[in-house]
Amino acid sequence: MHRILMRTVVLDFEPGVHDAARDFWKTALLADTRRGDRYPEYHVLEHPATLGPVMVQNLSEGASRVHLDVETDDPPAEIARLVGAGATIAQQHEEWTVLRDPAGLLFCVVPAASKDFAELAHIVET
Amino acid sequence: MHRILMRTVVLDFEPGVHDAARDFWKTALLADTRRGDRYPEYHVLEHPATLGPVMVQNLSEGASRVHLDVETDDPPAEIARLVGAGATIAQQHEEWTVLRDPAGLLFCVVPAASKDFAELAHIVET
Repeated sequence: MHRILMRTVVLDFEPGVHDAARDFWKTALLADTRRGDRYPEYHVLEHPATLGPVMVQNLSEGASRVHLDVETDDPPAEIARLVGAGATIAQQHEEWTVLRDPAGLLFCVVPAASKDFAELAHIVET
Repeated sequence: MHRILMRTVVLDFEPGVHDAARDFWKTALLADTRRGDRYPEYHVLEHPATLGPVMVQNLSEGASRVHLDVETDDPPAEIARLVGAGATIAQQHEEWTVLRDPAGLLFCVVPAASKDFAELAHIVET
């Protein structure tokens, strides 16, 4: 068995509108922004008025959109389960996998890293 | 002053893919589904593996997408604040308002209804 948690909402913006949209959501959600060190195309919204984390991504390709990140302690098992349920794999990154749902919407499977993952995640019965 | 909380993620699907996508996310997030009484185009995902509520909408128009709902105890004040920050009003429904962010992404401002709103929401200093 493994565990999953859909934790993070990512706001993805085309380069031409990224800065304005990032600054809008910073204001809208009463947040501060912190640019990623390792992944500078991402900004984390700090202390946003939300239930969970929100990040903003400056896209290198594709149209502006919202996507969800599903965390798991067993990415291969979770990706296999989601593909079995109707998802398709779109892109394999070094640290995460991009999938499409049956409607074509992109989402990601990412390795669980937070200390509270085991407490908050749900168990996938296999 | 008023309060806000971005609480709910809504997965919006075109009619042709809605049922398959709804059932996929039900499986993906280990949830049950409950169809709305007053708004039967919505399904609530019950007990999902997430930090906050997730709903699925069968769209009457537009392309499949993800949108966010911002709850507030003062919709007119919050809408005015967001328009001042760069949003535009797209549609006025009886119970909520649809806006576009500077990138054109849709999101909603909805009246706060949950008992835990005051506890979880953030204060907008005006």
